[in-house]
Amino acid sequence: MTPAPRARQSVGGLGESGILRILNRRFAAVPAAGDWPEGTVGPGDDAAVVAAPDGRFVITTDAMAQDRDFRLDWPAVHGVRFDGHGLAGGYSTGWKAAAQNLSDINAMGGEPSGLLLALTMPPTTPVAWIDGLAAGLAGAVRHLGATRCRIVGGDLGSDDRITVAVTATGDLDGRPAVLRTLPPGAHAVTADLDLVLCGRAGWAAAGLDVLETPRGRLDELLRAAEQAEQPEQPEHGVRRLAALAAAAQLRPRPVLGAGRVAAEAGALAMMDVSDGVLKDAGRLATANGLRAELDPDWVRREASVLVPLARALDLASGQRTAERWVSAGGEDYGLLAALPAGAAVPVGFRRIGRLVAESGAPAAAENVGSAGGWDHFTDR
Amino acid sequence: MTPAPRARQSVGGLGESGILRILNRRFAAVPAAGDWPEGTVGPGDDAAVVAAPDGRFVITTDAMAQDRDFRLDWPAVHGVRFDGHGLAGGYSTGWKAAAQNLSDINAMGGEPSGLLLALTMPPTTPVAWIDGLAAGLAGAVRHLGATRCRIVGGDLGSDDRITVAVTATGDLDGRPAVLRTLPPGAHAVTADLDLVLCGRAGWAAAGLDVLETPRGRLDELLRAAEQAEQPEQPEHGVRRLAALAAAAQLRPRPVLGAGRVAAEAGALAMMDVSDGVLKDAGRLATANGLRAELDPDWVRREASVLVPLARALDLASGQRTAERWVSAGGEDYGLLAALPAGAAVPVGFRRIGRLVAESGAPAAAENVGSAGGWDHFTDR
Repeated sequence: MTPAPRARQSVGGLGESGILRILNRRFAAVPAAGDWPEGTVGPGDDAAVVAAPDGRFVITTDAMAQDRDFRLDWPAVHGVRFDGHGLAGGYSTGWKAAAQNLSDINAMGGEPSGLLLALTMPPTTPVAWIDGLAAGLAGAVRHLGATRCRIVGGDLGSDDRITVAVTATGDLDGRPAVLRTLPPGAHAVTADLDLVLCGRAGWAAAGLDVLETPRGRLDELLRAAEQAEQPEQPEHGVRRLAALAAAAQLRPRPVLGAGRVAAEAGALAMMDVSDGVLKDAGRLATANGLRAELDPDWVRREASVLVPLARALDLASGQRTAERWVSAGGEDYGLLAALPAGAAVPVGFRRIGRLVAESGAPAAAENVGSAGGWDHFTDR
Repeated sequence: MTPAPRARQSVGGLGESGILRILNRRFAAVPAAGDWPEGTVGPGDDAAVVAAPDGRFVITTDAMAQDRDFRLDWPAVHGVRFDGHGLAGGYSTGWKAAAQNLSDINAMGGEPSGLLLALTMPPTTPVAWIDGLAAGLAGAVRHLGATRCRIVGGDLGSDDRITVAVTATGDLDGRPAVLRTLPPGAHAVTADLDLVLCGRAGWAAAGLDVLETPRGRLDELLRAAEQAEQPEQPEHGVRRLAALAAAAQLRPRPVLGAGRVAAEAGALAMMDVSDGVLKDAGRLATANGLRAELDPDWVRREASVLVPLARALDLASGQRTAERWVSAGGEDYGLLAALPAGAAVPVGFRRIGRLVAESGAPAAAENVGSAGGWDHFTDR
C-alpha cells in the first residue's frame, strides 16, 4: 500500500517508480482496470495490447500545457462551490484531459476503450498535484460513464513545465463511424440539414471569466449582484451560477452516450464542440461545402440564464457577453450533429441551426464566419 | 499545393489549418497514408478509425520536451557528416519521436500500424522546424521499414516551449505479445536465461557527448586525435566515429523486424533499451524476480570501437568512458530478449549476459544494480 502523498512533497525525490505507484493507485479506481480479456496486456510493459472486438478501433490524442490549457492552482470544485488548492488543480486537469479525449471518441459514434497518459513535468511538481491528476483521469472515466474504458499506459518525462498528453481509444462494435463529412450521396438527397447539439454551450467560457477574476474582486462583484437579486430565486443566484460556470470550465461533462444515440437516429455528420459553436459549426459546414446558420433565438435562449452572471462580472453588456459565451466559447464539449431537415431531433439534442448550400440565399439567421471561437495560433 | 515554408517564417501567423497543411504534405510521404481499408478513417476528423485485423492492437506513447529530450538547434545529419540547422533539428526530433514509439511496438513483437502526433509549441516556432519534424516522422516510418504504419491524427496546442507527444499503435496478427515478464510456468522449466541484444549499445550516449562539446572545441579535439591516427584506417577515423555517434543519438535505428524474429525464436521476455543496458536489463530481471549479469567481455568488445572517440574527446579514461557509454548509455533502442539458456541466438542478436535466480551464487560477471542508466526524476 502506497502511503498518501504529503501535502508539500514534490516528485523530484520519488523517481519514476515512485511516481508510477502514485498514478497506479488512482487508476485502480477505474472499474475495468483489473479485468483484461485473454490475449490483451495492461500497463507496465513497453506497450499495452488492447482488444478491438470488431477488428477496428477509434483513436484520438490531445496535449495540454501548463498555464495555457490548465493552471497548477486551479481551485477545487466541491459540488457547486469552489475553493482549496493542491490536489484539486491536478484533479480538474486530469478530468479535463480525459473528458476532451472521451468526447472525441464519442463524436465518432464510438465507445471509449482505453486512455494513455504522457506526462512531462519538472522535479518540483507537487506529488499531490500528480496524485490529483491521476484521480481526475480515473474520476472522469467513472463519472462520465465510460464503463469499458481502461487506463492502458503512458510515458513520463521531465521538463520545465507540465504537459499532459492523453490518447484515447474506442470501439465501434461494428457500426460505421460518423464523420465530419457527409457520407457519399447524402448531398443529393438532402437539400438542407438540421444542426442539433447535445450538451450546453457557453458555460465553460463563462467559467473561465469567473476563474480569471481575482478572488477578492469576484466576491465583491457577486455580493453586489446578490443584493440586487430577487430573494425568491436563490437557486438561480449569481453565486451559484458562478460556481456552476467554474465547474463547467474545470470539469466539462461530454454526454458520452450521445454519439451512439445520434448515429442510430440517422446523424449524417458529427463533431464535438471544443473551440466554440460558431467556429465548429463553421468547420462542419466547410467540410461539406456548406454554410452554417445558427438560430439567433437559440443563442438568445441559451444565453439568457447566463446574463445575470455576465452582468455581475461587470462586463460591458450582459446580454452581448452572454451571447458571445454561447456562440464563441469553447471547451463545453457538446456534440454537434447534422440530420436531414425535419428529421426527429435525437433524445438529449436540441435544434440550434442549419447547414445550407453555399450558394443559397442569405438567411436572416446569424452567419457563421471565421470570426469567433478559438484557434491556438491566431485569434483568441 | 502548399508552398515550401520560407526559412525564417514562424507558425504564429499560419493558424491551425496552415500548420496542418505543412504537416500533411510531409505525412503524404508515408506510402500507406492514402490507402485506408474499408471501414477505417484517416486523419482530420475528431478521431481516426484504425484496422485491428486480429481483434487486438498494441499501443504506446512517448512525450519529448524541448531542451530536455531535444534541442531546436540539433545539427543536421547528412550521411555521416553533421552540419546545418533549421529543418534538420526538426527532422531529427520527428525521427526520434517516431523511432522510440515504433521500438516499443517492436518490443511487444508487434508490427507498427499507426502514429499520432500531439504537438504543443509557441507561435514563434519556425515553420521550417515543424516542417522538418513532420518529414522526420514520415522519414523514420519509411526508412525503418514500418511499411504498414499510417499517420492517423493528432492534436495542436500552444505553449512557451515545444512538446512533441507521439502515440503508436501496432498489430500482432494473432501472435501472443512477448512481455517483460516470463509466461506462466517458464520459471519452472528454465534454471537460467540467456540475455540477447539486437542493435548497438553506447553509440547514442557517445553521440550526446559529441553534440554537447562546443563545435570549435570538438574540431580542435578531433584534429588532434586525427594527427595521432594510423593513416591506413581512415574508415575508423575519429571524425567518422564522431559523426556516426551523433547520428546514432539524433536518428536512432531500432531494428523493427527483430521483435517478431525473437518471438518466433522462442524469446520468453523482451523489452527495448531506452535507458541503458544496465538499467533495462535490471528491470527485465526484477520483473521476474531474477538478477541480471552482463558479460564483461561483451561490454569490453562493444566498447572497443568507441575507445578512440572517448580518448579524442579528452575524457578522463577512454576505456572507462567507452564502457560507461555501452553499459549505462540510453537511447540506442536496441532490443533485449531473454531465451532459455543455450538456445540458438536469433538472427541479428548477440548474447550479452544472463538472468539468474536472485539467490544464485554471485558470479564473476558485472552485477546490475540500480546504478547507471537514466531516470527522468532522479539520477542522470
